[in-house]
Amino acid sequence: MTETNQVRIAILGLGTVGGGVYQLFQSQKDSLEAKTGLSAEIAAILVRDVKKPREGIAPSLLTDNFDDILHDETIDIIVEVMGGIEPARTYITEALHAGKNVVTANKDLMATHGGELLDLAQEVGRDLLFEASVAGGIPIIRPMKQCLAGNRITEVMGIVNGTTNYILTKMDDEGMEFSDALAKATELGYAEADPTADIEGYDAGRKLAILASIAFHSRVTFRDVYTEGISHITAADIRYVKDMGCVIKLVAIARETEKGIEASVQPMLLPADHPLASVKDVFNAVFVRGDAVGETMFYGRGAGRFPTASACMGDIIDVMRNIRFYCTGRIGCGCYRHVPIEPMKETVQRYFLRMQVADRPGVLAAIASVLGGVGVSIKQVVQKPTKAGQAELVLITDQVKEKDFLDALERFKSMTDMIQDISSLIRVHE
Amino acid sequence: MTETNQVRIAILGLGTVGGGVYQLFQSQKDSLEAKTGLSAEIAAILVRDVKKPREGIAPSLLTDNFDDILHDETIDIIVEVMGGIEPARTYITEALHAGKNVVTANKDLMATHGGELLDLAQEVGRDLLFEASVAGGIPIIRPMKQCLAGNRITEVMGIVNGTTNYILTKMDDEGMEFSDALAKATELGYAEADPTADIEGYDAGRKLAILASIAFHSRVTFRDVYTEGISHITAADIRYVKDMGCVIKLVAIARETEKGIEASVQPMLLPADHPLASVKDVFNAVFVRGDAVGETMFYGRGAGRFPTASACMGDIIDVMRNIRFYCTGRIGCGCYRHVPIEPMKETVQRYFLRMQVADRPGVLAAIASVLGGVGVSIKQVVQKPTKAGQAELVLITDQVKEKDFLDALERFKSMTDMIQDISSLIRVHE
Repeated sequence: MTETNQVRIAILGLGTVGGGVYQLFQSQKDSLEAKTGLSAEIAAILVRDVKKPREGIAPSLLTDNFDDILHDETIDIIVEVMGGIEPARTYITEALHAGKNVVTANKDLMATHGGELLDLAQEVGRDLLFEASVAGGIPIIRPMKQCLAGNRITEVMGIVNGTTNYILTKMDDEGMEFSDALAKATELGYAEADPTADIEGYDAGRKLAILASIAFHSRVTFRDVYTEGISHITAADIRYVKDMGCVIKLVAIARETEKGIEASVQPMLLPADHPLASVKDVFNAVFVRGDAVGETMFYGRGAGRFPTASACMGDIIDVMRNIRFYCTGRIGCGCYRHVPIEPMKETVQRYFLRMQVADRPGVLAAIASVLGGVGVSIKQVVQKPTKAGQAELVLITDQVKEKDFLDALERFKSMTDMIQDISSLIRVHE
Repeated sequence: MTETNQVRIAILGLGTVGGGVYQLFQSQKDSLEAKTGLSAEIAAILVRDVKKPREGIAPSLLTDNFDDILHDETIDIIVEVMGGIEPARTYITEALHAGKNVVTANKDLMATHGGELLDLAQEVGRDLLFEASVAGGIPIIRPMKQCLAGNRITEVMGIVNGTTNYILTKMDDEGMEFSDALAKATELGYAEADPTADIEGYDAGRKLAILASIAFHSRVTFRDVYTEGISHITAADIRYVKDMGCVIKLVAIARETEKGIEASVQPMLLPADHPLASVKDVFNAVFVRGDAVGETMFYGRGAGRFPTASACMGDIIDVMRNIRFYCTGRIGCGCYRHVPIEPMKETVQRYFLRMQVADRPGVLAAIASVLGGVGVSIKQVVQKPTKAGQAELVLITDQVKEKDFLDALERFKSMTDMIQDISSLIRVHE
């Protein structure tokens, strides 16, 4: 702080989100004192190229040297919006050691090194807030850490990736194939040049790791989360699923059972009247189930310049209040337990299975018998002839342990006289 | 606190919510130290009749004398779950003066005297938290005060009364009349013996006053809120509305416009694909629109023993964290502006109007001409003959200033040769 009690803030990164934080901060600046009891200013912005002209931003604010910020003792808050693991991890670590508070939107970092960084923040008595790292502008971390703190949370389930939700919405509404819907998403700027992290479920997996850690008070990292993407979903799957009264969504879901924490991201069939089924386009929504509160849902824009900046700004304001009351570090990591992670193959699931089979008596019986052998009953089945002697078989199973079902699938693969192709395998919610 | 750093809590009231808080507290007790750094115990419970046996609660905890609690200096937190204005207002005032922190679920009190109590809390540097006073277990106050603090909030709109939402859901799903649906709600315990506060919109109005005060940083009290109930809604209205692709919900809505704050509770037509349209039964949902975040929604159980206790428990945990960090009073009232209230008659609305009219040429033209005279165009119109020489006319208008529309209605009342009866008048969302 300056001698006049002005909180000083540095932003690391001036991309989409960084620019949004700067703009939002300027528009909110005059109300900060009324909201927090302190005034604030942006003192420095770390950029790669200080010479690049940037409209509306004084060149004197720009630096390409993090040390200028780190060693400026008047800077109280670092807002890290660069993304990626390094150098963000090093910068945040050094900033905390130097006694600065940190606000970050970095889900990659928090999903992988969140534990170590939050421990450090606690050790040095500083805030490390990361509301923007999950579901953009939607308030979800603070509600879970504070409002729902009196609950034992048993499940967190959500649509937390806007890109894939846009693609699946297009496929569902307009019958598009995956590749066409992805092209459309790229055209509109919803998908990045390399869309892997989104379409393979990694982005959603990182957010789920962060949410699960908070929900269950036990550290869950990205590598603990099973991820499966949506690139194998076809327009044909969507049509069948629709006829069965369902939609396909990329669902991130974490549960605590007696055996441990299950955490997975995958395309999943939801009944059309499930509240998440109506979350369309780039919107996100997160369900949280607690023993006292029952089901709650949080909905809004999960990405974008200003929704993400909104979350950062909320964190900045909270840090300012904590600075004023000398209580930074008031809410720490929250992971005070060590709950084991349940491997995906041990979890219980239901499946949607689409296969190309021989169209003759005994085939369905043989398939049902294999499933029966691993204790699975078939809940719903549709068989349609496709060409001479062949048929498409679509079925939905009852609940079964994943590894048992995979055993059945292996058996199917060897039944080459009856089963030509296993076209799709998608999990079904509950 | 005791000398061993044990936070001591007193509960005022042991009804549905008070009993829920007690039970939830006991079930969470062992995790409190891990969550807050302090342990806690319930030290006293204020009841009317100390002799009444209460299962699972040690009689030594019970007292019928508030002074026992007020003068016990080891008690740090008062949880007020008695409801009603008095004696709650006096007790909370005295408790704050005595340096105690307060958690309350009391919407009547906060909607009427919230300003004075929050000012007092700020003055004495103590917490007065009231998450449970709006929408039960749904996190909404803290998200608005903290997560969305970086936004200029322009609108809050929600379904915040479970009883009326249950009644309207029954009317919509099963074609019931209001009185039958109310009887069903009473039978299931969703409606109180005297349902006035719910069905006339007063309960929702109180919650809206609290939400609007937080959203706009300007005190809005219950008497500033226009309220209209649902008892005049008929099964016939619901049928017409359904045909028009809409549903009727009791909507609480507050907006800040250039002219001031509009705050009203009324039955309202919503398009069937509006996110609030799918909020059914006793569930609640609140939409918040901010300039940076766009639209966000918060959904869950808005009432009931444990959802409400969940909100109280979240507040208790937050106060405990503040006690530990010596920062009680960290987030105060937040009303730092004085924005005038815009009277309902000055607001701009759309209307659904159902009338019994003479079935002859010129009637619709005369009606349209009266509406045209106040600058209203008709957006949608349905006319059906009912009996010899009569017809039912249903229309939806474009936007019009409420007072102008009321002028047109007065004109209609004098057109007795053409208009027999104005059966329904319901506002339409946007």
